Amino acid sequence: MTASTRLDHATALDGGDPLGAFVGAFVADDPHLVYFDGNSLGRLPRRTVDALARVVHEEWGGELVRGWDHWIDLPTAVGDRLGAAVLGAGPGQVVVCDSTTVNLFKLAAAALDARAGRGVVVTDDANFPTDRYVLEGLARTRGLTVRMVATDPVHGIDPEAVSAAMDADVGLATFSHVDYRSGAVADVETLTAIAHRAGALTLWDLSHGAGAVPATLDGWGVDLAVGCGYKYLNGGPGAPAWLYVGRALQDGLVPPVWGWFGQTDQFAMGPTYRPAPGIRRWLAGTPPVLGLVAVDHGVALLRDAGMARVRAKGLALTSYAATLAEAWLVPLGFHVGSPADPARRGSHLALHHQEAYRLGRALREADVVPDHRPPDLLRIGLAPLSTRYAEVWEGMDRIRRLAEEQAWRRYDPSPGRVT
Amino acid sequence: MTASTRLDHATALDGGDPLGAFVGAFVADDPHLVYFDGNSLGRLPRRTVDALARVVHEEWGGELVRGWDHWIDLPTAVGDRLGAAVLGAGPGQVVVCDSTTVNLFKLAAAALDARAGRGVVVTDDANFPTDRYVLEGLARTRGLTVRMVATDPVHGIDPEAVSAAMDADVGLATFSHVDYRSGAVADVETLTAIAHRAGALTLWDLSHGAGAVPATLDGWGVDLAVGCGYKYLNGGPGAPAWLYVGRALQDGLVPPVWGWFGQTDQFAMGPTYRPAPGIRRWLAGTPPVLGLVAVDHGVALLRDAGMARVRAKGLALTSYAATLAEAWLVPLGFHVGSPADPARRGSHLALHHQEAYRLGRALREADVVPDHRPPDLLRIGLAPLSTRYAEVWEGMDRIRRLAEEQAWRRYDPSPGRVT
Repeated sequence: MTASTRLDHATALDGGDPLGAFVGAFVADDPHLVYFDGNSLGRLPRRTVDALARVVHEEWGGELVRGWDHWIDLPTAVGDRLGAAVLGAGPGQVVVCDSTTVNLFKLAAAALDARAGRGVVVTDDANFPTDRYVLEGLARTRGLTVRMVATDPVHGIDPEAVSAAMDADVGLATFSHVDYRSGAVADVETLTAIAHRAGALTLWDLSHGAGAVPATLDGWGVDLAVGCGYKYLNGGPGAPAWLYVGRALQDGLVPPVWGWFGQTDQFAMGPTYRPAPGIRRWLAGTPPVLGLVAVDHGVALLRDAGMARVRAKGLALTSYAATLAEAWLVPLGFHVGSPADPARRGSHLALHHQEAYRLGRALREADVVPDHRPPDLLRIGLAPLSTRYAEVWEGMDRIRRLAEEQAWRRYDPSPGRVT
Repeated sequence: MTASTRLDHATALDGGDPLGAFVGAFVADDPHLVYFDGNSLGRLPRRTVDALARVVHEEWGGELVRGWDHWIDLPTAVGDRLGAAVLGAGPGQVVVCDSTTVNLFKLAAAALDARAGRGVVVTDDANFPTDRYVLEGLARTRGLTVRMVATDPVHGIDPEAVSAAMDADVGLATFSHVDYRSGAVADVETLTAIAHRAGALTLWDLSHGAGAVPATLDGWGVDLAVGCGYKYLNGGPGAPAWLYVGRALQDGLVPPVWGWFGQTDQFAMGPTYRPAPGIRRWLAGTPPVLGLVAVDHGVALLRDAGMARVRAKGLALTSYAATLAEAWLVPLGFHVGSPADPARRGSHLALHHQEAYRLGRALREADVVPDHRPPDLLRIGLAPLSTRYAEVWEGMDRIRRLAEEQAWRRYDPSPGRVT
């Protein structure tokens, strides 16, 4: 065993971790649990426990409907704080609302309205399913074509392939910042510029990166973006998502869902919808107060840590996990499916193994929680704020042990497995 | 003072109230508060405080992503329980998700797709703003016409006026079960039959009645319905809403928002969207777990109480408030804007007064919380499970005292007031 694969090396890394104190900011009652899935559902911040108890008892229970005097500002206020701390977005451009899927729908529909006459939507074949489905649905309703850019399974979106897919028929190009499978980070600025040169608008999904990989939405010149609230933002299961509309576009886009929270003078309850100025028109129905408060507290932790330090730790964690994987797991039949250059990957590591499904079941019983994506992928998610190096060591060690004993043989094959 | 306007009469009514014990099932820390707005945001059930604390700490904090093993069923399971306890809907037809506005959009868009070629949507001019705005938005995108049926300000929708508005051009008719201003209850069964005779589909908004006025969605032959989770269902601020699709229509309607939670085999993450069978296709993005749990507990209280008893108490409360209003407030310049027949009104009473806005401000300072709707309406919402007769007496008495002293003179006129 080399120095870098010994537990005391992990312990030393934790000792020198400038964000080490943040690990204790999260609820972690089970000391045996190795949680490699903060990229799917982020851990519970301790401060959120108290905040939710307070909003439930004092605000809902005590203020009752009077709470709307301040709740009404939450979607835009939390959006502004999220924009500043995490997204590189100036105020008045981010709102927290609805789900990622509904936000994708709203923004894609409005973008296609603004590029009426262009019959093609471009995305990539590795984009997250709900992104592809939303575009497919809009395309069917409107008689458009979805043009799929082929991606590299490890390195993701190739700018040259996107260039080749762009022409004057393309109204909208939609990609993810971080590939949900390989973790490859797309070059948002370059791809946005390519789309703009063809006259298309861009809609970026930051779900798999926001809160782990810094974003500069304003600086990159992104038109539209969405992302989810429950991964690295730690907003809890089914937390509201967010959306971004760059200021230059705000007056020109009309949401497809005309709701009372997006109306100019909501409580006049007048006869005709007039979209609110600015970002507020993207609200539709009544926003989820508990989820908004939880997202706000998750964002506050990221603000306190600073995205530069968060990214540095995320890079170090994935590099460390990759080192252990190369040393221990590749000899056992695994291969690493994430970019070798840490700067090109997000905060999770893709491990491929033909028995990934059954191994995932064995890992769960051994209190290691990664996730499995068919057919052969284990994702090792390493949320920077809540993950210790020693936890990475422990989890990788348990994967190694279970793989050595071929623990998958104790489980039935995946019911959906194509053999 | 007659017997029926004396406080001891209210106390006697509370003593004989078969649902009296339910009042104590809600958090009510401020004994001086009179809450007349449970029709806007329902009170907090005590059981929900514990349930949310548990789901936050034990499930999110402890189970983490493994919670999805059971959370995944919440939208349909809570929908089934809501359907059985409150909506008169058999299993597999109700799902709890998104906001009322987004659900209205999804169902109206799908219904219009199913009646393609029909260029008219019918609604009424007193329908809730977000309902009208959603239809207006869909109509503009699709080149349709919204045909507004004129309503009576007290008695709401006239079936003859709806009959006159229906013809072979109408694809969809959308109304509210309970008028959000007057409280008038629409005859859902008759209006649905009128729409069906013209070949149109119906979409009902039950937001202002569900949990107070019994519904029989299956028995009435309703095609589609939506409603909110935070009024009489007591799901908390911004709780998820629900939607209903009658079984006969389920295979024929395709949602406009194609999301991964509505996909047949969600976690296969395959290349093409295939809408899930049954009600699940109406899910789009990740459902809000905290809100779902809160709605579930609100529904459980209604199930325990039984909608027949809930309705009986609601009728008695609004009748009692109307008696006090006639005795005390009409002589002071108020008039009651709800139907005189209690069976034709929901669980709130409309009180009109030309100084309603400023009086509402004075009431808030006197710890009475009704709500104000422009230009001249105070709504006295009387949530059956959480309201005592003595609270009604106390609130009406405070309104009387403030009106007698013309307390509105202490406040500035409404900034939006048309004088």
